[in-house]
Amino acid sequence: MKNKFPVFDKITPSVLEAMPYEYDGKDINVCIETGEFTCLCPWTMLPDFAYIVINYIPNKTVVEFKSLKLYLQSYRMVGMVHESVVNSILNDLVKIIKPKELSIDIKFGIRGGITTTVSAEYLSKETKKK
Amino acid sequence: MKNKFPVFDKITPSVLEAMPYEYDGKDINVCIETGEFTCLCPWTMLPDFAYIVINYIPNKTVVEFKSLKLYLQSYRMVGMVHESVVNSILNDLVKIIKPKELSIDIKFGIRGGITTTVSAEYLSKETKKK
Amino acid sequence: MKNKFPVFDKITPSVLEAMPYEYDGKDINVCIETGEFTCLCPWTMLPDFAYIVINYIPNKTVVEFKSLKLYLQSYRMVGMVHESVVNSILNDLVKIIKPKELSIDIKFGIRGGITTTVSAEYLSKETKKK
Amino acid sequence: MKNKFPVFDKITPSVLEAMPYEYDGKDINVCIETGEFTCLCPWTMLPDFAYIVINYIPNKTVVEFKSLKLYLQSYRMVGMVHESVVNSILNDLVKIIKPKELSIDIKFGIRGGITTTVSAEYLSKETKKK
Amino acid sequence: MKNKFPVFDKITPSVLEAMPYEYDGKDINVCIETGEFTCLCPWTMLPDFAYIVINYIPNKTVVEFKSLKLYLQSYRMVGMVHESVVNSILNDLVKIIKPKELSIDIKFGIRGGITTTVSAEYLSKETKKK
Amino acid sequence: MKNKFPVFDKITPSVLEAMPYEYDGKDINVCIETGEFTCLCPWTMLPDFAYIVINYIPNKTVVEFKSLKLYLQSYRMVGMVHESVVNSILNDLVKIIKPKELSIDIKFGIRGGITTTVSAEYLSKETKKK
Amino acid sequence: MKNKFPVFDKITPSVLEAMPYEYDGKDINVCIETGEFTCLCPWTMLPDFAYIVINYIPNKTVVEFKSLKLYLQSYRMVGMVHESVVNSILNDLVKIIKPKELSIDIKFGIRGGITTTVSAEYLSKETKKK
Amino acid sequence: MKNKFPVFDKITPSVLEAMPYEYDGKDINVCIETGEFTCLCPWTMLPDFAYIVINYIPNKTVVEFKSLKLYLQSYRMVGMVHESVVNSILNDLVKIIKPKELSIDIKFGIRGGITTTVSAEYLSKETKKK
Amino acid sequence: MKNKFPVFDKITPSVLEAMPYEYDGKDINVCIETGEFTCLCPWTMLPDFAYIVINYIPNKTVVEFKSLKLYLQSYRMVGMVHESVVNSILNDLVKIIKPKELSIDIKFGIRGGITTTVSAEYLSKETKKK
Amino acid sequence: MKNKFPVFDKITPSVLEAMPYEYDGKDINVCIETGEFTCLCPWTMLPDFAYIVINYIPNKTVVEFKSLKLYLQSYRMVGMVHESVVNSILNDLVKIIKPKELSIDIKFGIRGGITTTVSAEYLSKETKKK
Repeated sequence: MKNKFPVFDKITPSVLEAMPYEYDGKDINVCIETGEFTCLCPWTMLPDFAYIVINYIPNKTVVEFKSLKLYLQSYRMVGMVHESVVNSILNDLVKIIKPKELSIDIKFGIRGGITTTVSAEYLSKETKKK
Repeated sequence: MKNKFPVFDKITPSVLEAMPYEYDGKDINVCIETGEFTCLCPWTMLPDFAYIVINYIPNKTVVEFKSLKLYLQSYRMVGMVHESVVNSILNDLVKIIKPKELSIDIKFGIRGGITTTVSAEYLSKETKKK
Repeated sequence: MKNKFPVFDKITPSVLEAMPYEYDGKDINVCIETGEFTCLCPWTMLPDFAYIVINYIPNKTVVEFKSLKLYLQSYRMVGMVHESVVNSILNDLVKIIKPKELSIDIKFGIRGGITTTVSAEYLSKETKKK
Repeated sequence: MKNKFPVFDKITPSVLEAMPYEYDGKDINVCIETGEFTCLCPWTMLPDFAYIVINYIPNKTVVEFKSLKLYLQSYRMVGMVHESVVNSILNDLVKIIKPKELSIDIKFGIRGGITTTVSAEYLSKETKKK
Repeated sequence: MKNKFPVFDKITPSVLEAMPYEYDGKDINVCIETGEFTCLCPWTMLPDFAYIVINYIPNKTVVEFKSLKLYLQSYRMVGMVHESVVNSILNDLVKIIKPKELSIDIKFGIRGGITTTVSAEYLSKETKKK
Repeated sequence: MKNKFPVFDKITPSVLEAMPYEYDGKDINVCIETGEFTCLCPWTMLPDFAYIVINYIPNKTVVEFKSLKLYLQSYRMVGMVHESVVNSILNDLVKIIKPKELSIDIKFGIRGGITTTVSAEYLSKETKKK
Repeated sequence: MKNKFPVFDKITPSVLEAMPYEYDGKDINVCIETGEFTCLCPWTMLPDFAYIVINYIPNKTVVEFKSLKLYLQSYRMVGMVHESVVNSILNDLVKIIKPKELSIDIKFGIRGGITTTVSAEYLSKETKKK
Repeated sequence: MKNKFPVFDKITPSVLEAMPYEYDGKDINVCIETGEFTCLCPWTMLPDFAYIVINYIPNKTVVEFKSLKLYLQSYRMVGMVHESVVNSILNDLVKIIKPKELSIDIKFGIRGGITTTVSAEYLSKETKKK
Repeated sequence: MKNKFPVFDKITPSVLEAMPYEYDGKDINVCIETGEFTCLCPWTMLPDFAYIVINYIPNKTVVEFKSLKLYLQSYRMVGMVHESVVNSILNDLVKIIKPKELSIDIKFGIRGGITTTVSAEYLSKETKKK
Repeated sequence: MKNKFPVFDKITPSVLEAMPYEYDGKDINVCIETGEFTCLCPWTMLPDFAYIVINYIPNKTVVEFKSLKLYLQSYRMVGMVHESVVNSILNDLVKIIKPKELSIDIKFGIRGGITTTVSAEYLSKETKKK
């Protein structure tokens, strides 16, 4: 009865799916939050955990949530520094859904008593002109 | 002693009632919040639950709260994606109460570890001119 | 030893008292909050409860707090819709203390799963000119 | 369309209604909470507000919630000290629904910087014997 | 890709599935919580929403979570008083998984300013003997 | 071993001490918060309690914290209305430390169910010119 | 219009008033909480602030709340160590209202990064025998 | 400068290390909490996330924290139902540190709107005899 | 004006001072909490931070708070495992104030995603006999 | 197995390490928070504790987190007033990582009932020109 999903060993943007936005022309903001993200520290290979918030204004497509979940899972066995995780997710999402705007905030789990949050933002050329 | 209300099987904007705004000409903001909203996922037909926040500045009419409650209930057996729920409620409310401004934020219950909030806004032509 | 206060059966702006503001010319903001307000639903005569926040910048007078408390109590047996309660309190306060600015937010207790907050604002002519 | 309810001027236990408990013989606990209660201070006639928690194990009847709401409203114009409010509600409820056990906690709104909570409990003869 | 689930119009205990408990003989407590439950008020047919907590000590079987989710959904179009909902779920679960102990607490959404929580408990004959 | 401090019976600005700001020319914001403030109601002589927040941008001096503590204590036996307390503290601090900007928010303890917060702000001539 | 209250310079148990408990024979618990208490450190004469919780089961009398407030104020100018404040209030209250049981918890404001809570309890001879 | 740790593909109790408890004979309770645990759902291979609380009273040894961290990581790529995860960790820990008592509570991330917490407990023979 | 305190480089129980308990014979509970404790990890010499809660029932003496503060500071440059810190503080305090009962809970700051709380308790011979 | 780190006795900026920012040209914000900071009061030599928040936009380098942790520890035995701590950290970080912008907020632990937060900000010449 239940589908078996792949367990990824590298970042896999190909699982990301864009769906047509049914109200094309009408601006909405979509905010996606998840506390279920884990990758590896590139030096120690110990796991890092993080809370992710993504906001975007769709243009002609929206991201399919299940595909986003699978995409985020593909970081599970990947070693990568915090600043690169944020830029990598941002770039992959922008390529697939081509939004008007998109921002990402990732709060990484405390390490050595220090909590780190990294944030990045994308504006399409059309949005910048306004 | 108690009135029996209909159980809806499709979105029913006709139950929405506008009442005259008694202080016509004086701007107020009306904020309406409810944690009692449920519709269905269009693919699995499993229920979705959501928290809704509506803000509007009335023009000549305000929405009657009981009628709004009935209207929101009419999504109970309807399969619809998140982005469409927001646009559908926005359009029906604007049509009935013709506000100066109206915004909607809907936070949908967590699915697969992901929480989604969709937001949309309406500005009347008069408001845009300012 | 204790004073007996009147129990009101209608809105009684005459109990409101203005006191001279001792630092006339120096702008301050006064924020008044109370969770002790109740009036009646005009259709069912069932009680409504609300949390009120008032902010104002005094001109030459401030409101005496005990008199404000008595004034708010005078809504206890009055049936009135939410939007009118806000406008009624705003108008009475502005008439008595003639502030530079005054705003009111009233969050009414949940009914049928819906919470409603109504907000209104007053700006004196002098304030608008700036 | 809406029913008009009476506005009480004295405690009215006659509005309380007991309904048969459908699972007679099976113990359940029913916990009822409300932040919408107000009566008057017997000396000053200023309103008191309170948060009420009632717990009971029904015997053969349960209390009808709407009737409980009306009963609690009947304290609205009554002057009564805190300790008496608790005993009065306890006695009226026990008389009507004849529970196995019933307890009441009432937290009264802060006065002069002091918050007061009064609690009382009823055990039926059968319960005490155990 | 996605499975389509039935939309129920009556309580359907037949969807509940028991799975063998792999550590038979070793006591564990399983606590299940969900804020996604809705049924109808039997008099008004208006929806009720509730938060459910189930605790049980399995004997030889545990409940399969997806099947529990489907079972709880089957109350969606059913009119039933609060005290009966609790007893109905308790009886169906006990029949299917035959636990050593099982308790249920259901907190129903606020109505008329009143929140109600109903609790019930089951002990197997073996547990009672201890 | 312990120093004995004076118990004040009137407002005593002379205890306030300014210390040179070591990084003169570099703007910082200093935020000071305390829940330990009490004065008297001028009419009843009953004590008032308050939570104070002070923010300032130093010019050439900063306030010594212990001296500020002593200064705030000097209101302990003084009867004064809320609006005057705020202006009095503001004026004394500005006179001693001559800041670029300074603001005060004082939230007074609930009285008769009403909480009051009074706020005031000072801008030096140099700051206003910008 | 307003009564003037005395400003105390020593602990004044004589202001405490006991009122007859109207439901003599019926056990209730009365819980009194206040965040408005201040005394002085006996060594430095700097003020201490505290949050007080008193619970008691009345016998034939209850404490009048306004008189309790005045009594607590009488510690305002008194230097006393934490452990003694608790025992002093306990002894005075027990002497006046002769309760079946009475307990006090006082949480003193943080000093040097340390928060201290002192608790004491009284049981009447009749209560101890049970 | 940094050590590289292994990435596990199966549960690896051999990494768990016991250290001598220096105060052997003196009972203490050690409570260990972590929000950084993830394994896989055995049917879908989608990740599960959980919050783990372990309490134990050591006998002659305590668990070394870093080794516990590595051990918990070894579930990262393992598919296992909730009830088995709890029993598996309990058994491995008891075998290594031979405590007087040990309990585990694991709260798994919400799935389909349902949160599940599974708890188990171990008592040594000596503890049971008491 | 200010006293200079020593900076310790080893645990210094000699700074602990006991004061006579003025109500000798009357049991009270004293609860002491502080978030200002730091020692070193014995292996890495990196600092550990902790939140400490101490509860005790005095016999003939109480601990002087300032001396306790100094004593806790004396761990600042000491490397010590969590379980030993708890036993060390317990033993030193019991030796100085000879309480009827004393318990300590220390919650250490998160390390590698794991939070640890260690608890220990002392009962005097007299207390054990009861 | 574990590396031994130095225990510092003076501020040691030389441990701070800058790493190349891999996405040079793409603006991100990095927010770093820690509750593990302690220095000494310059007058009493008693420890101060603080919560630090650092935000910066990297230019060509980011700060290595472990090195930042070591740098912050080097304040452990240093006596310094609050305003200077903030400016000292700001200056050292700016010198090493040469960010586009950097801000620091430090909330120091309560002393004498007063909590203090000091904030400072750096803007590079390029950022100011915009």
